[in-house]
Amino acid sequence: MIKEPIEKAKILLEALPYIQKFAGKTIVIKYGGSAMEDPIVQQSVATDIVLLKFVGINPVVVHGGGKEITSWLKKLNINTGFIDGQRVTNKESMEVIEMVLAGKVNKTFVNMINNAGGKAVGLCGKDAGLIQAKQSTNTKLGLVGDITNINTDILNLLEQNNFIPVISTTGADQAGNSYNINADYAACEIAIKLKAEKFILLSNVEGILDKSGNKVKQVTLSEIDEMIANGTITEGMIPKVESVIKAVQNGVKNAHIISGEIQHSLLLELFTDFGIGTMIK
Amino acid sequence: MIKEPIEKAKILLEALPYIQKFAGKTIVIKYGGSAMEDPIVQQSVATDIVLLKFVGINPVVVHGGGKEITSWLKKLNINTGFIDGQRVTNKESMEVIEMVLAGKVNKTFVNMINNAGGKAVGLCGKDAGLIQAKQSTNTKLGLVGDITNINTDILNLLEQNNFIPVISTTGADQAGNSYNINADYAACEIAIKLKAEKFILLSNVEGILDKSGNKVKQVTLSEIDEMIANGTITEGMIPKVESVIKAVQNGVKNAHIISGEIQHSLLLELFTDFGIGTMIK
Amino acid sequence: MIKEPIEKAKILLEALPYIQKFAGKTIVIKYGGSAMEDPIVQQSVATDIVLLKFVGINPVVVHGGGKEITSWLKKLNINTGFIDGQRVTNKESMEVIEMVLAGKVNKTFVNMINNAGGKAVGLCGKDAGLIQAKQSTNTKLGLVGDITNINTDILNLLEQNNFIPVISTTGADQAGNSYNINADYAACEIAIKLKAEKFILLSNVEGILDKSGNKVKQVTLSEIDEMIANGTITEGMIPKVESVIKAVQNGVKNAHIISGEIQHSLLLELFTDFGIGTMIK
Amino acid sequence: MIKEPIEKAKILLEALPYIQKFAGKTIVIKYGGSAMEDPIVQQSVATDIVLLKFVGINPVVVHGGGKEITSWLKKLNINTGFIDGQRVTNKESMEVIEMVLAGKVNKTFVNMINNAGGKAVGLCGKDAGLIQAKQSTNTKLGLVGDITNINTDILNLLEQNNFIPVISTTGADQAGNSYNINADYAACEIAIKLKAEKFILLSNVEGILDKSGNKVKQVTLSEIDEMIANGTITEGMIPKVESVIKAVQNGVKNAHIISGEIQHSLLLELFTDFGIGTMIK
Amino acid sequence: MIKEPIEKAKILLEALPYIQKFAGKTIVIKYGGSAMEDPIVQQSVATDIVLLKFVGINPVVVHGGGKEITSWLKKLNINTGFIDGQRVTNKESMEVIEMVLAGKVNKTFVNMINNAGGKAVGLCGKDAGLIQAKQSTNTKLGLVGDITNINTDILNLLEQNNFIPVISTTGADQAGNSYNINADYAACEIAIKLKAEKFILLSNVEGILDKSGNKVKQVTLSEIDEMIANGTITEGMIPKVESVIKAVQNGVKNAHIISGEIQHSLLLELFTDFGIGTMIK
Amino acid sequence: MIKEPIEKAKILLEALPYIQKFAGKTIVIKYGGSAMEDPIVQQSVATDIVLLKFVGINPVVVHGGGKEITSWLKKLNINTGFIDGQRVTNKESMEVIEMVLAGKVNKTFVNMINNAGGKAVGLCGKDAGLIQAKQSTNTKLGLVGDITNINTDILNLLEQNNFIPVISTTGADQAGNSYNINADYAACEIAIKLKAEKFILLSNVEGILDKSGNKVKQVTLSEIDEMIANGTITEGMIPKVESVIKAVQNGVKNAHIISGEIQHSLLLELFTDFGIGTMIK
Repeated sequence: MIKEPIEKAKILLEALPYIQKFAGKTIVIKYGGSAMEDPIVQQSVATDIVLLKFVGINPVVVHGGGKEITSWLKKLNINTGFIDGQRVTNKESMEVIEMVLAGKVNKTFVNMINNAGGKAVGLCGKDAGLIQAKQSTNTKLGLVGDITNINTDILNLLEQNNFIPVISTTGADQAGNSYNINADYAACEIAIKLKAEKFILLSNVEGILDKSGNKVKQVTLSEIDEMIANGTITEGMIPKVESVIKAVQNGVKNAHIISGEIQHSLLLELFTDFGIGTMIK
Repeated sequence: MIKEPIEKAKILLEALPYIQKFAGKTIVIKYGGSAMEDPIVQQSVATDIVLLKFVGINPVVVHGGGKEITSWLKKLNINTGFIDGQRVTNKESMEVIEMVLAGKVNKTFVNMINNAGGKAVGLCGKDAGLIQAKQSTNTKLGLVGDITNINTDILNLLEQNNFIPVISTTGADQAGNSYNINADYAACEIAIKLKAEKFILLSNVEGILDKSGNKVKQVTLSEIDEMIANGTITEGMIPKVESVIKAVQNGVKNAHIISGEIQHSLLLELFTDFGIGTMIK
Repeated sequence: MIKEPIEKAKILLEALPYIQKFAGKTIVIKYGGSAMEDPIVQQSVATDIVLLKFVGINPVVVHGGGKEITSWLKKLNINTGFIDGQRVTNKESMEVIEMVLAGKVNKTFVNMINNAGGKAVGLCGKDAGLIQAKQSTNTKLGLVGDITNINTDILNLLEQNNFIPVISTTGADQAGNSYNINADYAACEIAIKLKAEKFILLSNVEGILDKSGNKVKQVTLSEIDEMIANGTITEGMIPKVESVIKAVQNGVKNAHIISGEIQHSLLLELFTDFGIGTMIK
Repeated sequence: MIKEPIEKAKILLEALPYIQKFAGKTIVIKYGGSAMEDPIVQQSVATDIVLLKFVGINPVVVHGGGKEITSWLKKLNINTGFIDGQRVTNKESMEVIEMVLAGKVNKTFVNMINNAGGKAVGLCGKDAGLIQAKQSTNTKLGLVGDITNINTDILNLLEQNNFIPVISTTGADQAGNSYNINADYAACEIAIKLKAEKFILLSNVEGILDKSGNKVKQVTLSEIDEMIANGTITEGMIPKVESVIKAVQNGVKNAHIISGEIQHSLLLELFTDFGIGTMIK
Repeated sequence: MIKEPIEKAKILLEALPYIQKFAGKTIVIKYGGSAMEDPIVQQSVATDIVLLKFVGINPVVVHGGGKEITSWLKKLNINTGFIDGQRVTNKESMEVIEMVLAGKVNKTFVNMINNAGGKAVGLCGKDAGLIQAKQSTNTKLGLVGDITNINTDILNLLEQNNFIPVISTTGADQAGNSYNINADYAACEIAIKLKAEKFILLSNVEGILDKSGNKVKQVTLSEIDEMIANGTITEGMIPKVESVIKAVQNGVKNAHIISGEIQHSLLLELFTDFGIGTMIK
Repeated sequence: MIKEPIEKAKILLEALPYIQKFAGKTIVIKYGGSAMEDPIVQQSVATDIVLLKFVGINPVVVHGGGKEITSWLKKLNINTGFIDGQRVTNKESMEVIEMVLAGKVNKTFVNMINNAGGKAVGLCGKDAGLIQAKQSTNTKLGLVGDITNINTDILNLLEQNNFIPVISTTGADQAGNSYNINADYAACEIAIKLKAEKFILLSNVEGILDKSGNKVKQVTLSEIDEMIANGTITEGMIPKVESVIKAVQNGVKNAHIISGEIQHSLLLELFTDFGIGTMIK
């Protein structure tokens, strides 16, 4: 019986240097993939984010929502195709995409964070001019946008006042046209602009795998280059890997690719000695 | 040629005492009805709101969106009925209502304000716990909610930092259930909690009409009681009239019912000598 | 009847981008000449200045008062001559000059601004060490002073607390001797030190006139050089033109020479599309 | 040789508890009478005021200037009479009074303080609406005013930013009419509104004298009543005594009547053990 | 291997509502008895205190040091007796007591906290007038003091700037005489003055024991009265119990008596579901 | 009788430019030698320090205590030797040194300052990591430390909040070992880190003496070099002279060596025209 408390104390003590290290720092979390679909995982992520805020860390959440979008487009009999993993977007589908992301996925997750004791505020890229965009140079994609500017005023304000920003990645250009923005890229740009301490890609991907299929715990930028060159990192992972590389090259201290399948993976990644997923330095 | 500048100067001067009077004050604008459907009127309202902010007034916008909701429910083959002008709401329609309000109507209007030079931030009642609700006592309405609390922390923060809040009136209870909230009532409660200087109901209604169908310029609370009693104010107007009465009885200095059909009606109401619509004192 | 409100709204809307552009900026207004003598014009200028403050602009007023000084010197049987348009000043006349400027012209205009709803504070160059001076190198002028330093601490403090500074241009040296300072030059130096957005010379002069006597709407520094060289700009205008040139060359965004004869010329110059007077860029 | 430093140290040490006691407190000094006319006394008073500010006390100076006014009125051949020691004031003399007070006496003293190392700002009652007045009920006095309100916003701002306010007591009513205000009464009202620690009447009067003509060191309000009743306090002193009584009855901790004839009487009164003049508690 | 992370996450999650509840709150810890003598326990307490600070709690430490004092008095051949558990204190022993407490015990513990990553500042009751005292009414005790006032200015300043105050309980009277103050009582008074959320008595006592010698988990004030009355709480515990009772009766939310023998007992008491020791409500 | 006040006023006036010059500046006072042993001198120094604080100067006191240490070591039968004037320190004597300095000398002086009306806070080098040290390279000295870093956070905080820091010069290394630090050197390093206006060495030494044994009033760094070279400055003075030289070479405006034998020598040095001791520029 005396044993248990000592174990508990040890775990709290293990967390101490990490809490100390990250206090007051901004951590951008891209939350997407199937890790968004399981309500239990969602609940676990929401709870973790609230805990981060309570111990003085500033989490900024950028979410995806591809499956939910596909499901609603289907209900409305709107067809969309994909080019290189990006959804071809026309005016009709753009309207639905924004409704689903900013009106459903975003608000549902905001609500979960608030029920867990946090104070989340949902934003899309149009709010306070957060994500300014233009039509992608790859014009076949239609209303897919490239980011032209990130205005973090609203994020800084919310952070400093103990609110947790939750962001849907649609944006607009100066003429007011709406664009569908890749969430990995948007999260990466936001992390850079906020000079984030960490950029965490939380999805259903366990991390970067080596040739034998084992997860790599830590990897440097040059090792990644090699792994892409020799085909160890394959197609599906390339966009994610590109965004973490860009973040680390532009001032974000380090980046992680972790899986949401282990419950409370955020807490474990940040506050314990064993890393979940792969850390890019 | 000399005549024109003097006319211009006179109008700017006429606006002076009003600008002085309202500087630093909060004005809650309920924006709804067919005034929301015409893009030219929308543009005019967005421009007016930006001007208010520039001259130091703090506009808070609460919007409706009934027709847009009806249109999307129809596309999705979801039937809804109405009881006493309130939409009967089930889980399926609630999902759509929130998507359309918070993901489409809200973001479209936010975008318009921002293009006009403002810094708008779209919120629904779930963001930062803004509108807390419970199921309406009129249980036939389903997921229609009664307001249990308004938490204006996020509104005060945005106001003080020159952002313009734009609010969709869905809310949640402590268990996380979503509710559809009547926008007139929500706007009224927000105006009360913010101790607003003015509460403006901007719709397609020209104002309160007397027996002969002429618009009444000013009316007191007791005169309204009489007009309801003798049938001058009829059914459709009653909810609007109820919310302006409640606002005025609870500390809001005065309330206006004005039509969006005259362009820039907000500017004209606030900054010129002739009143648009009806003022309730 | 519907036409008039639309006209009013249009004028308010025309003012919007200007109000937005100048909000929070400092505008130094040199107010002098016969534009100071007509009580109706004075009232119009005072009202305009209050309006500027209300919409978030920081006006700083520097005034002249030559005719009033001449009138009092005459009442007291004190003779003064002029050299190159500058008043030759001895101890006896210096005493009267300061009394008339700081004790009469200044306080009268302060009072007008305050009656129009502003909060003006009258200063002379001695207050808070605002204008430090030494005897002019042109010693024939007697106690006419050259500016050695401008200390804007008191101006910044008043601006930030919503007061409107109104300045008489007498100054002192470190030994405590008083000097009569040319108001055009003093206003210019204050505009430079405050990094003013605009420097407006408001007098009875309509603007810079071309050879045919027509007012030039905009003019660059090099065009002015040419106009002085070819005699288009003649003697009386040279001091005014010199001070606006110096201001623009030292960081003031732009300068205007406008006439007070058109009522509310400040409002019209700043907030409408047709320029009054000449703008120097 | 060793003796002198010990004497110096003793005097600095004697000042210590007084400096401690008054640090951060406001002291209103009414400066008038013949104590204003001798340049050496003026210099001594200016130096003392600067020292007070340096050791953390907030002096607010209200000055008179009767003799200077009389002299200028004479130069301008304007006759004025006196009723009960108050100058009968018409429009013509009012103009001169304000010029002399706000444009000459005030600015001269401001200049002296600034030369002694302080940062003085001269104000009259019109600046920032400091003294609001109406025509005296004793209408025979003409434009002599009774105080209707004191707005100390500008005084608080100057105090908090290390400026020393120097005040001429002319004021205006809401219609913009100018009034000549008794400086003793104005100083008293300002002391009350500022919740001053002390109100010091510095003039050529040595203090309150007893029947034998000896100065009374301390006196209570009831003892004063008796001295007026039995004729010990005679006519000339009554207005001064009235204003110190009113100050003490309305929250000012204590009041002093002291003479400027002893150099540095302010320092000696505040920072040494022997009192100059009479203290009213 | 997957099991362990889930266990870790569960413990971090269990701590969440407690961290949230106590964030920004002040917790006064009286640290004494044999719990102060074991370097491993000291280290554990120091580490816990640093963790509390990192998660936003404000710990204030008040320490004892009886055994260390006794040891030094013996080395110096100074005899002291005890009356009712209080040390009889003369001038000679008072000097040694203060040296040992403020110069040795205090600085040693400050050093331990700082080595654990905190920023501790050691104070005795003389610093910043923290503990003002007078000679105890029980004069047989000699220089034992009763508290006359607690001045928490320095504690508030240190708290707000992320320092951890560590306090030795000697104090002084206005004449500068030193007194030995009971640390339990001093800690209690400090907790009351700081409106502490909790007052924790951390010593070698396990808690309050019932008649059978089992620790009582929670107890109310009235139950304690009964336990004293029926002799369950015996002599040695009475001073400790008195100070926790006084704290709870004067606004401290709750108080705990816990043992330092279980390592990290502070963390376990505050952040886990099973209570160490006895909680008094 | 009139003569005395004028003398008093003159002395207060003489102090004015000095008070003005030093207001808001930091002055580090090394207080040691026999000047610390006489209670009357101690009282005089404490009073002076409080006066400095009242007139807006920020005194930081660093004290010695060699004789008191020697006395307690003797009582405890602990032998210590000296090498080059530095005490050889072992673990046993280190414990006593810290107790005597931080627990007795420090707290006694803190108490004296507080009784004189100041708000002193006693610190040793361990508090808030103020003095970080390592073992001296001269290892024969045992636990004598060389300074590796000065962390002035706590000093800045105390200064800004009107507290007077009083510092004992023991320090610790990162492993938590305690070191005895030379107080002259520590005071010098603190003065440099705080960018002090002055560094005053207050001891029983009258100043630097020339060949004839007369005190030198002012001396430059190069003159000191010469005096050391030609044997005018002899052994005992060298450490003091070294620390004042280092301070002046590293940004401290000037340094003084003064004697505490003349009462209130701090006041006289700072606030009067005749210098006590020697000033190094």
